[in-house]
Amino acid sequence: MPGEFELIERLCAGITLSKRTILGPGDDCAIIASRRSRMLVTIDSMVEGVHFRLGWGTPRELGRRALAVNLSDIAAMGGVPAFCVINLAVRRGIDAAFFDNMYRGLKAAARAAGVDVVGGNITRADQLAITIALLGDLPGAALRRDSARAGDEIFVTGTVGDAAAGLRILQGKLHAPVRARSFLVSRFLNPAARLDAGRALARIRPAPAAIDLSDGLLQDLGHIVERSGVGAEIDAQAVPLSPAYRAALGDDPSLALGGGEDYELLFCTSAGHRERDLARRLGLPVTRIGKIVKGRSVTVIGNRGASGGMRGFDQLRSRD
Amino acid sequence: MPGEFELIERLCAGITLSKRTILGPGDDCAIIASRRSRMLVTIDSMVEGVHFRLGWGTPRELGRRALAVNLSDIAAMGGVPAFCVINLAVRRGIDAAFFDNMYRGLKAAARAAGVDVVGGNITRADQLAITIALLGDLPGAALRRDSARAGDEIFVTGTVGDAAAGLRILQGKLHAPVRARSFLVSRFLNPAARLDAGRALARIRPAPAAIDLSDGLLQDLGHIVERSGVGAEIDAQAVPLSPAYRAALGDDPSLALGGGEDYELLFCTSAGHRERDLARRLGLPVTRIGKIVKGRSVTVIGNRGASGGMRGFDQLRSRD
Repeated sequence: MPGEFELIERLCAGITLSKRTILGPGDDCAIIASRRSRMLVTIDSMVEGVHFRLGWGTPRELGRRALAVNLSDIAAMGGVPAFCVINLAVRRGIDAAFFDNMYRGLKAAARAAGVDVVGGNITRADQLAITIALLGDLPGAALRRDSARAGDEIFVTGTVGDAAAGLRILQGKLHAPVRARSFLVSRFLNPAARLDAGRALARIRPAPAAIDLSDGLLQDLGHIVERSGVGAEIDAQAVPLSPAYRAALGDDPSLALGGGEDYELLFCTSAGHRERDLARRLGLPVTRIGKIVKGRSVTVIGNRGASGGMRGFDQLRSRD
Repeated sequence: MPGEFELIERLCAGITLSKRTILGPGDDCAIIASRRSRMLVTIDSMVEGVHFRLGWGTPRELGRRALAVNLSDIAAMGGVPAFCVINLAVRRGIDAAFFDNMYRGLKAAARAAGVDVVGGNITRADQLAITIALLGDLPGAALRRDSARAGDEIFVTGTVGDAAAGLRILQGKLHAPVRARSFLVSRFLNPAARLDAGRALARIRPAPAAIDLSDGLLQDLGHIVERSGVGAEIDAQAVPLSPAYRAALGDDPSLALGGGEDYELLFCTSAGHRERDLARRLGLPVTRIGKIVKGRSVTVIGNRGASGGMRGFDQLRSRD
């Protein structure tokens, strides 16, 4: 295994920093220029054996995905990502080429998203883990979880359940035709943070409540419901399923309701927005799946195929 | 083991946030107000079995220490800590009371340092790990690693080697008289970030080069030497040793030169500053231990007791 400093040098090699980074990696702290008076901060982690296995994808995909799950949090606030610091926990038995490729993926994803990698820390551990703290700008309104109101309509971008199906394929728990398989697995391994869509949502007035789909549709909607002090009704038959999902799982939306890691956006707008108009604004397919109501709970209607008491994907409870 | 949301609620319970936090924990990101145009960012991690063992100290000490090692990076830049986000990797077999006490220590340390805990993330893992990303303000000049110049004099705050001796006592590798033992162990378990001293250093002109002693005096000085493109000469006999260190190890400064985690500040000022004046400014004992010279390497003179080729504490190489 390469030493600590060698790894930090590898991580920082060929890094491109914007003018906003006054002092990059290599000192006790980075110094950044905060252009606006408000900034976004988030932290997220991917742990080997919990969120990924080495055999599932390439090191490059792993690096890209570690950043993407953080970018998605910035997207879900309507923000613009700007800076990150990375903590890498490394274990024995992983060679330097692996880290080179992982960093390549990570740095390419950072560049594509306009993010400066301004610092890092490396520690030994028994499991590989990538923890990223990401800072972003908030040019306009924030998409908060606590601003949903009874009467709002609930939408999601893209299709839901693909990543959960992809994960189950990787785990050997689900079989699918070849083409569907590769689409679903790729949706798990290569999530795309919906940054442009988040920014577009932040221009709608009043600003929608929003969250990214990381834990699963029902569980994530549960966060909005809880923080907004409202209830929600979801039409299970309206949840958008991809052709690949249908090829693997038929018309049963259970996994789309409960499975996580799609990193699509779920948002609640005042009534009257048309799917087509929203799709044009967001640059993504948008589907109305239900409405915010008075109350405190999430009700699912029309879920003929689902088992009762379905919960979202909770990494702490459902170890693969 | 408590569930993810329960743990996040425990972490956030009773949290006090300043007016600078526009949106605290519970959304996709926190929203903070950046008062100044420049901000400091750092990330650091403590991993069970690498940086600590549960039996060594109390959960409260563990929480406090996890923040202190980050605060120390802000101190070493001359900054003022302001916000943090915490990633907690939890394993089976640790009960809720442990986390309550750890969070108590962490939140108390945050309050004392003026830090808002604005967000967190919790994941499962096989080892307990606390990773903190810390943001700070930089009201004046930065204390950089790359600004040491030949002719500068090298100083350290406090005493050096205590934490390394304390660690070896906890590991059963070193014996010491009872009173010395408790002092040294406490220096390891309860490091104090030198925030006031860092701020005071940042008011000296030209701004000193500085680093906090985390990896060990020689290794940390090596970072300054490398980034500044200079050499250094250290007088081993001048390195300040505590009475407890001497009680355990005699006059041999080897562990003080190589051992890490003291979280004192090492800094390089233009010649002519007197120890006594610096101590008054910084509010801490200050000792001159050498000088910056032309060249590229660190030379230690007068180290009669030391073995050759001594290196700093490198967590990746020297597993306990």
